[in-house]
Amino acid sequence: MVDIAPVLDALRAQRPLVQNITNFVVMNFSANALLAMGASPAMVHAVDEVEDFVAISASLVVNIGTLDAGWAQSMRLAAAKADALGKPWVLDPVGVGATRFRQQTCADLMRHRPSIIRGNAAEIMTLAGAQGGRSRGVDSLANSADAIDAAQHLARATGCVAVASGEADIVTDGERVATIRGGAEMITLITGTGCSLSAATAAMAAVAPDRFVAAVAACALFKVAAERAAAKAGAPGTLAARFLDALYGVDAGDLAFAASIELA
Amino acid sequence: MVDIAPVLDALRAQRPLVQNITNFVVMNFSANALLAMGASPAMVHAVDEVEDFVAISASLVVNIGTLDAGWAQSMRLAAAKADALGKPWVLDPVGVGATRFRQQTCADLMRHRPSIIRGNAAEIMTLAGAQGGRSRGVDSLANSADAIDAAQHLARATGCVAVASGEADIVTDGERVATIRGGAEMITLITGTGCSLSAATAAMAAVAPDRFVAAVAACALFKVAAERAAAKAGAPGTLAARFLDALYGVDAGDLAFAASIELA
Amino acid sequence: MVDIAPVLDALRAQRPLVQNITNFVVMNFSANALLAMGASPAMVHAVDEVEDFVAISASLVVNIGTLDAGWAQSMRLAAAKADALGKPWVLDPVGVGATRFRQQTCADLMRHRPSIIRGNAAEIMTLAGAQGGRSRGVDSLANSADAIDAAQHLARATGCVAVASGEADIVTDGERVATIRGGAEMITLITGTGCSLSAATAAMAAVAPDRFVAAVAACALFKVAAERAAAKAGAPGTLAARFLDALYGVDAGDLAFAASIELA
Repeated sequence: MVDIAPVLDALRAQRPLVQNITNFVVMNFSANALLAMGASPAMVHAVDEVEDFVAISASLVVNIGTLDAGWAQSMRLAAAKADALGKPWVLDPVGVGATRFRQQTCADLMRHRPSIIRGNAAEIMTLAGAQGGRSRGVDSLANSADAIDAAQHLARATGCVAVASGEADIVTDGERVATIRGGAEMITLITGTGCSLSAATAAMAAVAPDRFVAAVAACALFKVAAERAAAKAGAPGTLAARFLDALYGVDAGDLAFAASIELA
Repeated sequence: MVDIAPVLDALRAQRPLVQNITNFVVMNFSANALLAMGASPAMVHAVDEVEDFVAISASLVVNIGTLDAGWAQSMRLAAAKADALGKPWVLDPVGVGATRFRQQTCADLMRHRPSIIRGNAAEIMTLAGAQGGRSRGVDSLANSADAIDAAQHLARATGCVAVASGEADIVTDGERVATIRGGAEMITLITGTGCSLSAATAAMAAVAPDRFVAAVAACALFKVAAERAAAKAGAPGTLAARFLDALYGVDAGDLAFAASIELA
Repeated sequence: MVDIAPVLDALRAQRPLVQNITNFVVMNFSANALLAMGASPAMVHAVDEVEDFVAISASLVVNIGTLDAGWAQSMRLAAAKADALGKPWVLDPVGVGATRFRQQTCADLMRHRPSIIRGNAAEIMTLAGAQGGRSRGVDSLANSADAIDAAQHLARATGCVAVASGEADIVTDGERVATIRGGAEMITLITGTGCSLSAATAAMAAVAPDRFVAAVAACALFKVAAERAAAKAGAPGTLAARFLDALYGVDAGDLAFAASIELA
């Protein structure tokens, strides 16, 4: 059993400041998702201030979705600072399989020891050097279940918690493996739900010392919120608004009751 | 008659990967519009990877809304690559009449032979060197109907399909001219509907060999979706969500039935 | 009494072009807010064109939310041009207390004499050199009421109208002080409402010669729209859409009737 209810309660009690170096597409949605669930987001990326800002943040998420060389430099500086200060930081390796530039940037970032890596199955497999799973834009062609081995390999090799999200989410620290089920298929038609899950993971990691538990709590919250939203909206435009509503409305008791978490 | 129903069916069957180099304002809305209608969006712009990404994409849209010198370089690289590979690419010349920098950037980009140019009437007139139509931000002061001559001139001079969208949309390859009517006036109060139409045009061009038909299909889908959305929402905030819902909900049969397309 | 109804009427009659150099997180929401309330937004920031664009805009907002060194240069050029041309411009000093880079950038920008400075209480206090109010991301830890002295000091020292927004909004030109009440607490869970208020203030300043009145009108519109939105939506996702709806739906008569403005 993974005791996630106290994590959500702690999030809302502490309202941690979560620094986001993320992509242009999802900045607004990620910020709204963090606010709705109870965290305090900040999007700060300038080379001139990114280290100063890590110092006052509770956790950091680095998402390479719309990276370029300048942003990659900021990402490295921020990641290095988070590592040096022992603050949790989450890497979201968007589309890492698509280009050499993304592979190189992720390799550079992983030297700074991400606490958690959250991607789709193809991205996790790419990072693990596993076979199969070619990145197709930001979508995954592989089922998350196929990624368990890769995620465990990645977690063991790097000391991170690896999250391969998809129809089912896989979370592992190399030893423990949790599978979180639920959600709604239509949520994949809203851009930024994966990126926002990475941000949520950073928020949970700011308040939960066990990063495996933090990642499971974030995945469970998103699955439960997606289900609730899909019960109220049958198409992606209204679903996006309802999803934010549900992130706000789910309380710790709801979450513990509704989440489907299987430990292997 | 323009047979657009098969284009929408092909889009949903193939889910083409559409690369967007677009402006910060509309990235989220464009990505969600592409997802809702059935395409697979990716926003990738770094000089270090933009050519690699064109190679794996089905089509490209280049939108100069929030350009700067660095982005303009990426746009040129991507456009040149798309041209070299024979992949369809769409130019959206946002506000081209407003500054010399935009005019120069568009002139540079047009050397790489855009397959389709989609703008408002003022933008199309500016590119065609036609008289009238001074750009006022991203709005058009000219009626789309005034732009038919300019669009035909632009299409003939450059070999592109020209789209002047507005109260009525004009699509022409220099010979054929289609006028697409319908929509809802209030849709102009949502930022990014024009930019998303350009993205939709790129998506359709990825699956339809005839780019005139592709552009007509995109315009028709947007007009029909706007009508449906406006029937459910009387103010711009909820209208935006309903518009995405309608892009998702309209099927090929609905589209063929509801679209108002006049061939001249 | 502050006569704000004519300001809203003038906005809708004139549809002023408002140039925004703002942060990535809120660009879409700010543009949609400006469109909904009746202005014509443009987001333009390239060094190559920013001065040309100020020349054709009615007013300018400069928001440092996601600044970097390149953007800071554009901000300085635009602010200097607006000052030289006597056009109203609004500074939004997002998170100015958080890093030295933000403090320095704001100091540079203030040399170009912003017409209006709109921030939360902590940001206004930081700029005024007042005690208290440490910035925590983009949130304020201080109550707006605490900021009256700081806002008056800032207004007198710089010749601007200072706006410290929060649970109650404070507007002052150094002599007159208005407190605008109302709104809805949940609006703070939507990112970009403060930034959009700055944009709204620039829109109102484009049509109202008295910048104190312009700022009061913007604050009043936002408070009334938030109230109306909150009456229709109980969670932040749907609230955001309803807030845009309300910005569109409130007319000058509603505004004059519903606004709570106290002059001190």
